[in-house]
Amino acid sequence: MPPTHSVDLNCDMGESFGAWTLGNDAALMPFITSANIACGYHAGDPAVMKQTVRAALKHNVALGAHPGLPDLVGFGRRNMDISAEEAFDMTVYQLGALHAVAKAEGGQLHHLKPHGALYNMAATNAALATAIAEAVYKVQPEMVLYGLAGSELTKAGEKIGLKTAHEVFADRTYQANGTLTPRRQPDALITSADAAIAQVLRMVQGGGVRTQQGTDVAIRADTVCLHGDGTHALEFAQRLNKELRAAGVQLQATAPRSAR
Amino acid sequence: MPPTHSVDLNCDMGESFGAWTLGNDAALMPFITSANIACGYHAGDPAVMKQTVRAALKHNVALGAHPGLPDLVGFGRRNMDISAEEAFDMTVYQLGALHAVAKAEGGQLHHLKPHGALYNMAATNAALATAIAEAVYKVQPEMVLYGLAGSELTKAGEKIGLKTAHEVFADRTYQANGTLTPRRQPDALITSADAAIAQVLRMVQGGGVRTQQGTDVAIRADTVCLHGDGTHALEFAQRLNKELRAAGVQLQATAPRSAR
Amino acid sequence: MPPTHSVDLNCDMGESFGAWTLGNDAALMPFITSANIACGYHAGDPAVMKQTVRAALKHNVALGAHPGLPDLVGFGRRNMDISAEEAFDMTVYQLGALHAVAKAEGGQLHHLKPHGALYNMAATNAALATAIAEAVYKVQPEMVLYGLAGSELTKAGEKIGLKTAHEVFADRTYQANGTLTPRRQPDALITSADAAIAQVLRMVQGGGVRTQQGTDVAIRADTVCLHGDGTHALEFAQRLNKELRAAGVQLQATAPRSAR
Amino acid sequence: MPPTHSVDLNCDMGESFGAWTLGNDAALMPFITSANIACGYHAGDPAVMKQTVRAALKHNVALGAHPGLPDLVGFGRRNMDISAEEAFDMTVYQLGALHAVAKAEGGQLHHLKPHGALYNMAATNAALATAIAEAVYKVQPEMVLYGLAGSELTKAGEKIGLKTAHEVFADRTYQANGTLTPRRQPDALITSADAAIAQVLRMVQGGGVRTQQGTDVAIRADTVCLHGDGTHALEFAQRLNKELRAAGVQLQATAPRSAR
Repeated sequence: MPPTHSVDLNCDMGESFGAWTLGNDAALMPFITSANIACGYHAGDPAVMKQTVRAALKHNVALGAHPGLPDLVGFGRRNMDISAEEAFDMTVYQLGALHAVAKAEGGQLHHLKPHGALYNMAATNAALATAIAEAVYKVQPEMVLYGLAGSELTKAGEKIGLKTAHEVFADRTYQANGTLTPRRQPDALITSADAAIAQVLRMVQGGGVRTQQGTDVAIRADTVCLHGDGTHALEFAQRLNKELRAAGVQLQATAPRSAR
Repeated sequence: MPPTHSVDLNCDMGESFGAWTLGNDAALMPFITSANIACGYHAGDPAVMKQTVRAALKHNVALGAHPGLPDLVGFGRRNMDISAEEAFDMTVYQLGALHAVAKAEGGQLHHLKPHGALYNMAATNAALATAIAEAVYKVQPEMVLYGLAGSELTKAGEKIGLKTAHEVFADRTYQANGTLTPRRQPDALITSADAAIAQVLRMVQGGGVRTQQGTDVAIRADTVCLHGDGTHALEFAQRLNKELRAAGVQLQATAPRSAR
Repeated sequence: MPPTHSVDLNCDMGESFGAWTLGNDAALMPFITSANIACGYHAGDPAVMKQTVRAALKHNVALGAHPGLPDLVGFGRRNMDISAEEAFDMTVYQLGALHAVAKAEGGQLHHLKPHGALYNMAATNAALATAIAEAVYKVQPEMVLYGLAGSELTKAGEKIGLKTAHEVFADRTYQANGTLTPRRQPDALITSADAAIAQVLRMVQGGGVRTQQGTDVAIRADTVCLHGDGTHALEFAQRLNKELRAAGVQLQATAPRSAR
Repeated sequence: MPPTHSVDLNCDMGESFGAWTLGNDAALMPFITSANIACGYHAGDPAVMKQTVRAALKHNVALGAHPGLPDLVGFGRRNMDISAEEAFDMTVYQLGALHAVAKAEGGQLHHLKPHGALYNMAATNAALATAIAEAVYKVQPEMVLYGLAGSELTKAGEKIGLKTAHEVFADRTYQANGTLTPRRQPDALITSADAAIAQVLRMVQGGGVRTQQGTDVAIRADTVCLHGDGTHALEFAQRLNKELRAAGVQLQATAPRSAR
């Protein structure tokens, strides 16, 4: 009997703010297994956070903190020269805020995934990665740390004793060394939904990823990043969800560590 | 043998922000028993919050959340027409943020006291008071809710099942109905340190407060509000601390409810 | 020959922020004659302001500053207890910011209309109204001050020497004393587009407004407020624009004072 | 008869915010000739801006805009990956805001000097430098652009047709290529007031600067940056002001271009 494969489908959620709506949270929620909820720095406000927690709980979607840089107008997408201590402090703050929102709604946090520029910087900067991992560890060590597969962030999490989820992308191509093809390159994106789904299926079933250099590299694929916006985001999420299940893949969030 | 009296001395702390310093936290910390720590809305940032938690833990001062209105430039002192739900949401958010900062430092929150305009509005607006009390109750029901003695806030806390601390003021005069003399009146403030200390001693020892109308009214005095700024703030805190102890009054934060 | 009537159609514009889009500016611009452009406090950011100025200039729409309260998450809709001096200062700041954006694009400001809670407070609070009028007068006295018809704001503007535009509403009912029916009352809104257009036509042609009490009251109708959001906003703007022109009403922004 | 030398003494001013005070503006104002006034992004608020403009006008100090990155908690000191267009937009916005504050007080802006990380990035990044220069040029081309002597910023200003002021530092050492010794190097700072004053005098009198490599390099010294904080800031400003005048150096802000 072949091994049963399992994967998590995560999506950024709760990125509205005040009078402004962003994304398509309600429609996407049924097709994902974990939600990365903005915590007020790059997006989200306390009311949006509460509504998003409620929607996730209703659909049995795992709750994740999605802390970002303090750059509301830039949506946390612009790199900032923050120190490791600043990364630690802003992660603790945002994680705690969402923890309380979740607790007030009867839920608890399952994971943390940094947003945007903070995610990207933590993928390659070991000091920032360690600071974020420490923040999670000191506040709630049972939580799962989501990071780019094979990045400094997952390494830092594993070193400190956190359970990690390695994240892969359906619509991004990979290089021979296992890294993502930089967005500025013309072949960075996979625009065919068929190809994107095939890439995910192969990664999830242990076949690694076919790189732009034509080789196959092994990749750990615990969680797949789905996009919440874009014209075909919902359609793609539905298809991926359906085809993974049809292929016998279990869709579920990574089990957290047992509470100590 | 006469009964032993006990009182808490609280002070707003951690009201610096970024490059800006405010207050005299380090000097005052030895003379108080509980600290109301700003949570980022009216003052405070994650780094300041961490430093303030550390200082309080070092001096065995009880940690309190001090949530404010989202009005940094106005220091949370301007009334805003917020809804009860908004009050709930912003209290949960700020409480959670400080909770995580405290937990990362090995501490835990003891109380919550709203700041500035939020405190004042919650003293008389039952809907806002209930929302704040509910926020505390749903996130951490062991915490003590600090509010103006006899106010809507303490009432709301008691109704919902929270332990409350009734706050009195050393340097404010009182009216025959037990309320504070409004600040716009010429006799609102007690400027003599001797008179202020005498007023506190009498309230703490159960003698009530002598009102501006010359009558005595009973007042529950669980905690005394000390000011962190002003030229004589430190000197006054030292004297009050010393004279209360000399009079046999125990200085300690209100015992929290046992955890459920 | 009957007198020629003239009116301005104004609409709030540029209320997007960062990654968030709000309103339907591009579609509405052809049907209005003046744009109230958010200045960064309640909505708008420097990039949005620039794009909005460009679009307005392209359609020959008069540029207006639309300053709001410093309450981004509340979209400037929550009353705040600000002082008159604070109202003056925040009006100067926001007016100046938009002035420079307009100048860099080769345009100049035509008017100022406060936003949301600031508009409402200035309609009844003479001190705030005077402060806003002074701000405009001291920075650019040629500008036209838009305010609720017959309000403290238009009075303050006229007193200080500003040209004012009295604003009326197509979709709101009026009381016998010429004020708007409060929104909390069931008959506050006109939901029929036909009735709304008829009300505007009558006001613009000098016929006053039929009140909820059945009487007619005179009202000065220099500018009509159009809404930028809502499902039928665009359709209504198109119809109102078309029917006013069909009735021989000239659509144009109030002529500013000559520069001194 | 020897040539008369002239120099400007500039200082960052108006860096308080809301309830927080920073710097020693009132004491320093008499000893400087131009003030760089924070515009609300990294520091400053409309009330602080007004007070600072008033103080500068009172002391006949030239008014300058001091725009920063949108990073209040980081005081605009952290590099951010902003685009050239974002740099243009935020410069226009902040410049305009201060322009209006100055105009309301009867003053007009003389110069612009970017703050902190924006200043540093614009010193070496030609695209950002050009964007800032364009912003000034499009809004008020008579203004003087202050930048690090010999930097990309002064080059960009000169290329676009702005008058520029090359800035030198009293307390920083220089390298053989005319650049500042990076702060991380042990010999970056001049700690002796005597040596700092001697360095300024020599630069101002056309003698260039003695580098850390022992050579002399020519440097254009139009304006000297004074610090507003630090224990000896005031004392140093007083001494430098006095000794420059004693040496026959005229203290005055760079004359702006004639208005077109």
